[in-house]
Amino acid sequence: MPRRVPDLSVYLVTDRLLSRGRALVDVVLSAVRGGATVVQLREKEGSARETLELGRALLHRLRPLGVPLIVNDRVDLALALGADGVHVGQGDLPPEVARRLLGPDALVGLSITGAADLPTLDPAVVDYAGVGPIFPTGSKADATPALGLEELARLRRLLPVPIVAIGGITAANAPAVIAAGADGVSVVSAICSADDCEVAASTLVRAVREGLARRASPPPG
Amino acid sequence: MPRRVPDLSVYLVTDRLLSRGRALVDVVLSAVRGGATVVQLREKEGSARETLELGRALLHRLRPLGVPLIVNDRVDLALALGADGVHVGQGDLPPEVARRLLGPDALVGLSITGAADLPTLDPAVVDYAGVGPIFPTGSKADATPALGLEELARLRRLLPVPIVAIGGITAANAPAVIAAGADGVSVVSAICSADDCEVAASTLVRAVREGLARRASPPPG
Repeated sequence: MPRRVPDLSVYLVTDRLLSRGRALVDVVLSAVRGGATVVQLREKEGSARETLELGRALLHRLRPLGVPLIVNDRVDLALALGADGVHVGQGDLPPEVARRLLGPDALVGLSITGAADLPTLDPAVVDYAGVGPIFPTGSKADATPALGLEELARLRRLLPVPIVAIGGITAANAPAVIAAGADGVSVVSAICSADDCEVAASTLVRAVREGLARRASPPPG
Repeated sequence: MPRRVPDLSVYLVTDRLLSRGRALVDVVLSAVRGGATVVQLREKEGSARETLELGRALLHRLRPLGVPLIVNDRVDLALALGADGVHVGQGDLPPEVARRLLGPDALVGLSITGAADLPTLDPAVVDYAGVGPIFPTGSKADATPALGLEELARLRRLLPVPIVAIGGITAANAPAVIAAGADGVSVVSAICSADDCEVAASTLVRAVREGLARRASPPPG
């Protein structure tokens, strides 16, 4: 029986440094009130112990709401927290290792930065792909070149799992990203750096709906 | 039944950046030929996947020699490798979490940077302490102030587990460090940066023996 992949439509990736000094738990809860469907804990700067504490606080609030918490990179943190899963990049522990350590019920996501990464995704192991960067972005210093919407559409056809698109996504371009085939949009600064994180998330929810509507009824011609 | 703590007398901590361009596996094997008794894999720069590959190569060579491989910080890497244990700092995952994830047979070491850290060490959880820095050191950018030999001797009396001293230790000062009560000396550059890593390790072995002899027969007066 396949694992149930959650609603990936508005997938928030955390970043305290981009959260304008606000408490990350508040940022995340605002985003969830606005409609964020998944939260990935990605804190590159703090110590593992700080991230563990942050993860505990988030899990305590998110679990009753049914919003999954996925940990970036650190399988040990995911295990220690009892989080819903882990997201690994191409340089992190291989997804097969994450799956073995986390067991069959955890979510395992894998970053795909281009067609060359496709052979690394075994759909028996990986539940969803994070595809990007779609557009140029300032959130991630080591980001690879932007893929663009055409390449996203091509990767969508080639990937055997649901995908969230990431990298430079805003409410303005999210409809096109969803129309190109992404199952969800993953954002950092579009929510974390917004004046009102709840409004930012709900605007993205509407943008995703607009994209789905475009996909259902393509323009004539 | 208590876990059997290995011979900690010459405890090598790896650092590719300090290894003068030599392959880390060669550096480590030279050190072990010279008498290094424990190896800790600590690679702060590479990706987790690179460190995993490095750990696999090391474990493959060290296990037949009976030399334990301990992973710095990353419990998931230790689990993925089937390494002998993990060494955590005060900002890493708490030792209790490491113990829970690794099980009763793994070695769990904890860094102690001063008397204020003593309450964090539960001897039911932690097998040995890494105490330091003893002397000022360039190997670790975020090192806390040097403890000195008197404070080392005091911490030795207060700590209920074997200790390896770390930080600025060389063959010249190792006898005094051991005489002050350390069970072993932990070094990075004294081996990794040496012209001949095997000679460097065997020199440290002799220095530890000299320190033990000093301890056994203190100077008259």
